[in-house]
Amino acid sequence: MSALLTDFYQLTMLQAYLHEGLEEEAVFELFVRKLPPNRCFLVAAGLEQALDYLEDLRFDDSEIAWLVGRGGFPATLAPRLRELRFTGDVHAMPEGTVFFPDEPILRVTAPLPQAQLVESRLLNIVHFQTLIASKAARMRTAARDKTLIDFGMRRAHGAEASVFAARAAWLAGFDGTATAEAGRRFEIPVVGTMAHSFVQAHASEAGAFEAFARSRPLRPTMLVDTYDSEAAVAKLIAIAPRLKLDGIAIGGVRLDSGDLGAHARAVRSMLDAADLADVIVFASGNLDEHRIATLLQDGAPIDGFGVGTALGTSSDAPALDMVYKLQSYAGIARRKRSEGKATWPGVKQVSRRLDGVGCLAGDLVHLVSESAPGVALLQPCMRAGRRLQPTPTLDQVRERHVHERSRLQSALLLLDAAPAGYGAEISAGLRHLAAQVDSATC
Amino acid sequence: MSALLTDFYQLTMLQAYLHEGLEEEAVFELFVRKLPPNRCFLVAAGLEQALDYLEDLRFDDSEIAWLVGRGGFPATLAPRLRELRFTGDVHAMPEGTVFFPDEPILRVTAPLPQAQLVESRLLNIVHFQTLIASKAARMRTAARDKTLIDFGMRRAHGAEASVFAARAAWLAGFDGTATAEAGRRFEIPVVGTMAHSFVQAHASEAGAFEAFARSRPLRPTMLVDTYDSEAAVAKLIAIAPRLKLDGIAIGGVRLDSGDLGAHARAVRSMLDAADLADVIVFASGNLDEHRIATLLQDGAPIDGFGVGTALGTSSDAPALDMVYKLQSYAGIARRKRSEGKATWPGVKQVSRRLDGVGCLAGDLVHLVSESAPGVALLQPCMRAGRRLQPTPTLDQVRERHVHERSRLQSALLLLDAAPAGYGAEISAGLRHLAAQVDSATC
Repeated sequence: MSALLTDFYQLTMLQAYLHEGLEEEAVFELFVRKLPPNRCFLVAAGLEQALDYLEDLRFDDSEIAWLVGRGGFPATLAPRLRELRFTGDVHAMPEGTVFFPDEPILRVTAPLPQAQLVESRLLNIVHFQTLIASKAARMRTAARDKTLIDFGMRRAHGAEASVFAARAAWLAGFDGTATAEAGRRFEIPVVGTMAHSFVQAHASEAGAFEAFARSRPLRPTMLVDTYDSEAAVAKLIAIAPRLKLDGIAIGGVRLDSGDLGAHARAVRSMLDAADLADVIVFASGNLDEHRIATLLQDGAPIDGFGVGTALGTSSDAPALDMVYKLQSYAGIARRKRSEGKATWPGVKQVSRRLDGVGCLAGDLVHLVSESAPGVALLQPCMRAGRRLQPTPTLDQVRERHVHERSRLQSALLLLDAAPAGYGAEISAGLRHLAAQVDSATC
Repeated sequence: MSALLTDFYQLTMLQAYLHEGLEEEAVFELFVRKLPPNRCFLVAAGLEQALDYLEDLRFDDSEIAWLVGRGGFPATLAPRLRELRFTGDVHAMPEGTVFFPDEPILRVTAPLPQAQLVESRLLNIVHFQTLIASKAARMRTAARDKTLIDFGMRRAHGAEASVFAARAAWLAGFDGTATAEAGRRFEIPVVGTMAHSFVQAHASEAGAFEAFARSRPLRPTMLVDTYDSEAAVAKLIAIAPRLKLDGIAIGGVRLDSGDLGAHARAVRSMLDAADLADVIVFASGNLDEHRIATLLQDGAPIDGFGVGTALGTSSDAPALDMVYKLQSYAGIARRKRSEGKATWPGVKQVSRRLDGVGCLAGDLVHLVSESAPGVALLQPCMRAGRRLQPTPTLDQVRERHVHERSRLQSALLLLDAAPAGYGAEISAGLRHLAAQVDSATC
């Protein structure tokens, strides 16, 4: 990825910092200021790609040439850009951790020019995966124990969004993705059925089903709504015995339009009556967590859901109010006081207490110099520009997230609730420091 | 880009098509089924990247190895994948064209396996840029003749979304982007101011302004809201004469929080009183087309706007109902009849009539075999897998779009209107064909 994938002002500030010799240690923290409507918690994700970015960051000759030529930067900057590497430290919440507003989820400690430069891409990476993991967690709750597959590639916002969304959804509990490249890159189970065009291209729908089954004989799932869902299932039932003779068992039928609950009931009855009880019913088509919850509450006999656009774009809240702010420079705490956007100064930690049954009992955001009960959520993960631990597998991250979610009070898992009141407290030390900083700023 | 950046089912269908010998000519069309709420038109974008994708499409050895190994595909498929290229034709509306639901904006004519395979990534590319260009066009209308800059990178959905959003916004009339890589890649003007952290890192705000001005002396824009916007402007006014002596003129001030209209009025008065009438006022912070329109209707003296999240995520409508559907195979028209998702069959053209003053007077979607008055919007742009024309410059696309927008009836440019009733008519030939296809489908 190009080092120029950043906001231009990061480069003009870099130039000014180097010009002034402002290269002492800076501490920036990345956090969310407030939750979107109807969200009670968020899920940290994207750390591994953020660390990859920091480890790999460098300007190549063509990027430097562009900056000096079209970007209006002095040629004297070129050697500094050429040697620039990220040499700082990173503390972060492990991926899959549940978190709340005002809690830093990632902290960068590095010479000011470096720590500043990385703002845009760090946010770009962590924001998006956190957004999608947080949305996916809601779908996971709504879908109970049913299968959940990411179908979002076509309307995700570009190539990287497609594969990162599949990753974020998987770590938050999805069961697979339709995006082949995400399967290859992250070893996520890859799932596919068929498109309407496959059925349309054949002279008859039954012929399409039979051809697909013979080409992909391992429990294929058949898309049945191209013309009429129940009529298609009747055709499938008619060819099932012939396929069975050849050792092919139909795996499932997929509904993709109309009243999914009504169609599911109808085709479930038809399949059961035809002794095809092990053929699952899979549903897709404009689904989100609310529609999934309603279908299951109404008892729709649906075994799995494919979710596309609502997942891949986090459709109800396509962005989080996530920021990356300077909290300390050269050992002195800093904060901005912009109206409605003031930050808590200083280098912070988040400590989480659990109650007697292991549920979240309270989070405290405090200065690292203050002691606090509970588990410290920000853990060291990079020192002097190098990872401290090997990358955990996505399965490990996924297990951590399942455990995290099991510790949430059930009110936090409601889909429609106003924020349920769980959130970080701010320590006395932080409040005191903020007042101190304000009185010293001119 | 990996050829595996596609939905897995495209690959299983490809396998089945090759297995069955279904390799005759297919025609797929890409279109939007319905508009998002409060939208009256859309803007076609992304064609150039779509053509790049088709020209470059090929499976490399590692991708094929993954498919045969983890993907469950037979090794006999490997040579077919290795030689696969896109050899088809493409017709499309030029980028920047205004279009409406049910109007194909891109048509692929190719052997079925190829035409099917490219569905996911074609949609992924064209959907996103069309989404953002359509959103940007609304902002362009709202902002009248003021400067509009894309600030969206940090909360855009990944790397590709950042640079594609900058491109789409520029072609729909934005004046620049903050994303350096988009500037390099697409020769879009790149703009940058400073971050709050720059001010915070300095011992004094005035010192920060002066340092920045001396480092970037060409009419720098100063961010003034880190602590108190009016107080910061007073500091700027105080240092302006000293900078002027050194030949440095302050270019602008940027407001980023609070009541932007009130702050703009206050700092405009202060600057004018200090004989700094040529210092512009630039505003950012949670802006969208509605807030921009309101600020300008209220007479806020703001000369330019930076728009981030609302642009880069198309926040009110983060996806379009855009699809890519088989309309003909082996010379026979096809359509799906899924409930609520039925398509018009056959190979189509969109003809647009203009009225006496050059405004849009009526669009007709019709079979290519039917004649229709007006300008045919789908133009040939690729034949046998190769572009027919050199890539137009983005400036040319931008000019075309400005012209396109000038031909819209003014009601279509309202931000809050319910869809104003302009839309494509469906030809008699198409309706007749649909009935024919339905009676022939089994």
